[in-house]
Amino acid sequence: MGELIGKVVESTLYYVPKSEFDRIRTLNDASAVDRTRMFADMCRLNTLYMIARAGSGHVGSSFSSLDVVSWLYLNALKNDDLYFSSKGHDAPGLYAVLIALGTLPFEKLHGLRRLDGLPGHPDVTVPGMVINSGSLGMGISKAKGMVRADRLKGHKRRYYVLTGDGELQEGQIWESLVSAANSNMGEITAIVDHNKLQSDYRVSQTSDLGDLKAKFASFGWHVERCDGHDLDEFSEALENCAAHPGRPQVIIADTVKGRGVSFMEHTAMESDADMYRFHSGAPDADSYGKGAQELLDHVNRALDRIGATQLSLETVEPSASVPPSATKRLIPAYTDALLARAAKDERIVALDADLVLDTGLIPFKEQFPDRFVECGIAEMDMVSQAGGMALQGLVPICHSFGCFLSTRPNEQIYNNATERTKVLYVGSLAGLIPAAPGHSHQSLRDISALTSVPNFDIVEPCCPEEVPLLLDYLISTPGRSGYLRLISVPWAVPFDYPATSLTPGQGVVLREGKDAAIVTYGLIMTAEAYMAADALAKDGIDTKVIACPFLNRIDGAWFAEQLKGLKLLCTVDNHYLNGGFGDQLLAALARQGQAMPQVVSLGITDVPASGQPAEVLRHHGLDSASLKDRIRQELK
Amino acid sequence: MGELIGKVVESTLYYVPKSEFDRIRTLNDASAVDRTRMFADMCRLNTLYMIARAGSGHVGSSFSSLDVVSWLYLNALKNDDLYFSSKGHDAPGLYAVLIALGTLPFEKLHGLRRLDGLPGHPDVTVPGMVINSGSLGMGISKAKGMVRADRLKGHKRRYYVLTGDGELQEGQIWESLVSAANSNMGEITAIVDHNKLQSDYRVSQTSDLGDLKAKFASFGWHVERCDGHDLDEFSEALENCAAHPGRPQVIIADTVKGRGVSFMEHTAMESDADMYRFHSGAPDADSYGKGAQELLDHVNRALDRIGATQLSLETVEPSASVPPSATKRLIPAYTDALLARAAKDERIVALDADLVLDTGLIPFKEQFPDRFVECGIAEMDMVSQAGGMALQGLVPICHSFGCFLSTRPNEQIYNNATERTKVLYVGSLAGLIPAAPGHSHQSLRDISALTSVPNFDIVEPCCPEEVPLLLDYLISTPGRSGYLRLISVPWAVPFDYPATSLTPGQGVVLREGKDAAIVTYGLIMTAEAYMAADALAKDGIDTKVIACPFLNRIDGAWFAEQLKGLKLLCTVDNHYLNGGFGDQLLAALARQGQAMPQVVSLGITDVPASGQPAEVLRHHGLDSASLKDRIRQELK
Repeated sequence: MGELIGKVVESTLYYVPKSEFDRIRTLNDASAVDRTRMFADMCRLNTLYMIARAGSGHVGSSFSSLDVVSWLYLNALKNDDLYFSSKGHDAPGLYAVLIALGTLPFEKLHGLRRLDGLPGHPDVTVPGMVINSGSLGMGISKAKGMVRADRLKGHKRRYYVLTGDGELQEGQIWESLVSAANSNMGEITAIVDHNKLQSDYRVSQTSDLGDLKAKFASFGWHVERCDGHDLDEFSEALENCAAHPGRPQVIIADTVKGRGVSFMEHTAMESDADMYRFHSGAPDADSYGKGAQELLDHVNRALDRIGATQLSLETVEPSASVPPSATKRLIPAYTDALLARAAKDERIVALDADLVLDTGLIPFKEQFPDRFVECGIAEMDMVSQAGGMALQGLVPICHSFGCFLSTRPNEQIYNNATERTKVLYVGSLAGLIPAAPGHSHQSLRDISALTSVPNFDIVEPCCPEEVPLLLDYLISTPGRSGYLRLISVPWAVPFDYPATSLTPGQGVVLREGKDAAIVTYGLIMTAEAYMAADALAKDGIDTKVIACPFLNRIDGAWFAEQLKGLKLLCTVDNHYLNGGFGDQLLAALARQGQAMPQVVSLGITDVPASGQPAEVLRHHGLDSASLKDRIRQELK
Repeated sequence: MGELIGKVVESTLYYVPKSEFDRIRTLNDASAVDRTRMFADMCRLNTLYMIARAGSGHVGSSFSSLDVVSWLYLNALKNDDLYFSSKGHDAPGLYAVLIALGTLPFEKLHGLRRLDGLPGHPDVTVPGMVINSGSLGMGISKAKGMVRADRLKGHKRRYYVLTGDGELQEGQIWESLVSAANSNMGEITAIVDHNKLQSDYRVSQTSDLGDLKAKFASFGWHVERCDGHDLDEFSEALENCAAHPGRPQVIIADTVKGRGVSFMEHTAMESDADMYRFHSGAPDADSYGKGAQELLDHVNRALDRIGATQLSLETVEPSASVPPSATKRLIPAYTDALLARAAKDERIVALDADLVLDTGLIPFKEQFPDRFVECGIAEMDMVSQAGGMALQGLVPICHSFGCFLSTRPNEQIYNNATERTKVLYVGSLAGLIPAAPGHSHQSLRDISALTSVPNFDIVEPCCPEEVPLLLDYLISTPGRSGYLRLISVPWAVPFDYPATSLTPGQGVVLREGKDAAIVTYGLIMTAEAYMAADALAKDGIDTKVIACPFLNRIDGAWFAEQLKGLKLLCTVDNHYLNGGFGDQLLAALARQGQAMPQVVSLGITDVPASGQPAEVLRHHGLDSASLKDRIRQELK
């Protein structure tokens, strides 16, 4: 869930080399439990290294699950048994384990969240990864499908599936439990990494799980509960599960988020602090250094106890830092616009699905506590609750990342629209960037997934100044609901925004041109298009740039007029090409019945890459340099 | 769920007039329980009348819930209290109640599933209907949103929400229970119409619910259980609920599907019969007559006991029947194609979400019992299970109605696609027709909702002969998943299908023409287009008809060649215009950089109407006569 994209740590970094893992695994003087504990802390060290180097990643849940995961890989998995994480946020920890074991090439340690490295969430193209996850709630269902396949083939093996505790708020989890019990799927052992915190707050604050043991038991599962950091207890729980081969089993593993580094452990949070700081993002240099030292000390103390040699680490010096350029941000602009609107309009209510920090809602929550509803990771429930509110005259605004909001509750959004009330949706983390979290979090299907909802506008601002104009439009226009698509990362904006009002269906001309036009939308692609036009001008190609805030309501006549006499139209989608804005613009132009310029349609055409912004934009041919080259080539 | 569209009953029909309801409600010699029982049976009579006249509707669940619903309306609802059904299939029963009480105009009794009458599932435009339902699992969430709105406004009232028992397989139900308990929503009383059967089979066969009482209790709800036909028991359960104002409450009402007509009651099913016959569709004339007589006898016996006058019924004589024209069906063609393919390919597995009859899977289930998985009403779980199977080398095919399959598990379908396995989806009940069930069941967003899934084909056959060609294409093409869109109703096919093989991205020319072209797809619109072209020919307008099986993979050059020299291109979408096939075709043509003919784009532009096929096609301007008129007018 939460996806803070932070800064890389610019100080000396440390990691444990493969040879040290090999040494610790064969330390005969240590018990299996002691070896596994050391192994897990060494994986924590490497996890911290990977995240510090990448600038983002999920420390908290990697650390909370690492004892359990290490135990599974070192002592429990037999033959073809498979382990995977349903939540997937703990991928860095799992990568560290797979690298330590040699399943993954060691050099991948340096490539977390980089192109051709290790994606932010699990992907089956990575050796050792069994399923794609990061979209929550699917893991147990996936395991069930695999069990059915095994049974058909007469293949015997066990599946260990890790879930989060916040993840248990997703309806699919409970949907998936039913038939696992009815089909006696004793092959499956689910393990709940019960670290008590979700993206933003404590699970108990967000949407308390109640009597979890009774819940699982009532769904027909055998339930164990243990301390997820006490490996003797966990091992016993696994044995007890094995004694129930005719029923699926679940182990509720009580864990500590951030386990292993004292000040990252959620139990170290001040009693009045309600937000945990190490869910996503990267630690600062100071936290990194102290955390790494603590982990190293743990391992060395354990080695001391058995008289073994101290741990030897490899060192990486920081590369020269790039000074940040001046950037603009849409989320704070949205926060301000929402507060201003809400102060004047009592009907406005904000709903959140466990992303209050990412979606910029904390000031709203503080200013209008009665009008804020934290729904937990329960997007379907959130959207249908909003429908109920709208039927009673409120104007509810649902918030989540675009990837989740446009798809998980897709049928619920349509159901609301058929009631002809006004319900608004704000999908952040829109588009290709940040690409670091991987495809589960890159919202590249939201236009297509929602465009057919009747009486429904999809809008996206190209700069902070456009945010209040679009929010006002969505709230004020009678008889229509809508979706505000927001890019979450900061970006440099190279143009002055000229508009003070918007006309539905029309774009904003940022730059005139006589040869070609780039028509696009949103913070990143508009900026890249503008820079491409600047570069093309130096080559004598005069390129118009039109930013389109209205992505599914298109004034074909206006656009036809704007494009008259141009040789080339380049549409750029920060979205899959199929079903994106470009398709709709071209269809609207085709209906105008006038001569079309040559057309080049750019956008995403396959599962997007995970990596850092510049390399991924370039990979998909969407950075300003690629745009420039493509247009120059097309005009030849 | 299940939607058999049957025949209207062509014999004398009977209904209870409003005056008789008024008389029974004020019979002072009868107890509240006796009056309510009579009222409920009279509503059953009118429900049977409505469904017999409409030719389809859900008898079974209307009858199972009518005692509870009648009690609520006659004795429990106070002031602004609201009742609604989350499942919505029981709409005919609820309409009968609202008509009896005068909330709905009495003449609506004659308009079930007719244009401007009463839609097949609840819609808020109908007086007395609180939410739109028919898409399952949303009701409790909606109630929660309303409670939050009431609390904000300081308004006090209670909400009674009816759910099905099969509906409890939907994950959203369990998702919605959590925060209702955490927010102490004592304002909500859910009632489970526990009639033990879902669309096709017994709930226990499909996906057993286990210890339902323990499940609800573990989610923090106060639980009552009672005989849902014993109104003393039900009334006591309601009182017990009222004694727990600080917690949401649920009453598990044990009911009998089809209650009130002996041979429609599920308890009368033969012990070896596994399929219940009265879930959807209409009774035949004989069943209608016997059923109506039984219900009349019940009421008259009760009136006898208190010495009151016998019930007086109104009579409606049947209208002259229209002889059916020769029609073709896609579902049996799909069944045959699937069986043939599966016999040769052991990897093929079929998954169903409680629509085994509607989706044509019974022969597959019988022939390949090990390769058939009944998932229950759990589409997300079904799709992710399929993903797991595909990762283990199977070729899973998921089945449901298109409206549900393309939206409820939308994120899960994408997740599977990112794993680059082959998973197929077959969405039936596609398009505008049958319109009788209403917008929750009209699949008009599936192209848009799925087109952006990468490496994914959306295909739709225009006639039975095209079904095996498309299924073969989907199964054989490496590296791509896909969605087969199937219209479920039979339709007259006026052309001979000329193709024996298909080229991806290209259409099939059914008729040449020099003036205009209609480009469309699917069983109904292709037939209507062909007939329109026939009619236009008589007016001297020579119209080409192209049927397009590939809805999101378009060979623009081929189409441009086909349309060369024509004055008019008419695209017809059996889908919302926004995001439909027409948009994608026009975009592909615009990229060809040649002169476009005049374009007219037809399709659905607002929430579709509910009614009978001919009237609804006409309403949306999509029947052959409207197409002809529109093209003639455009060419003027």
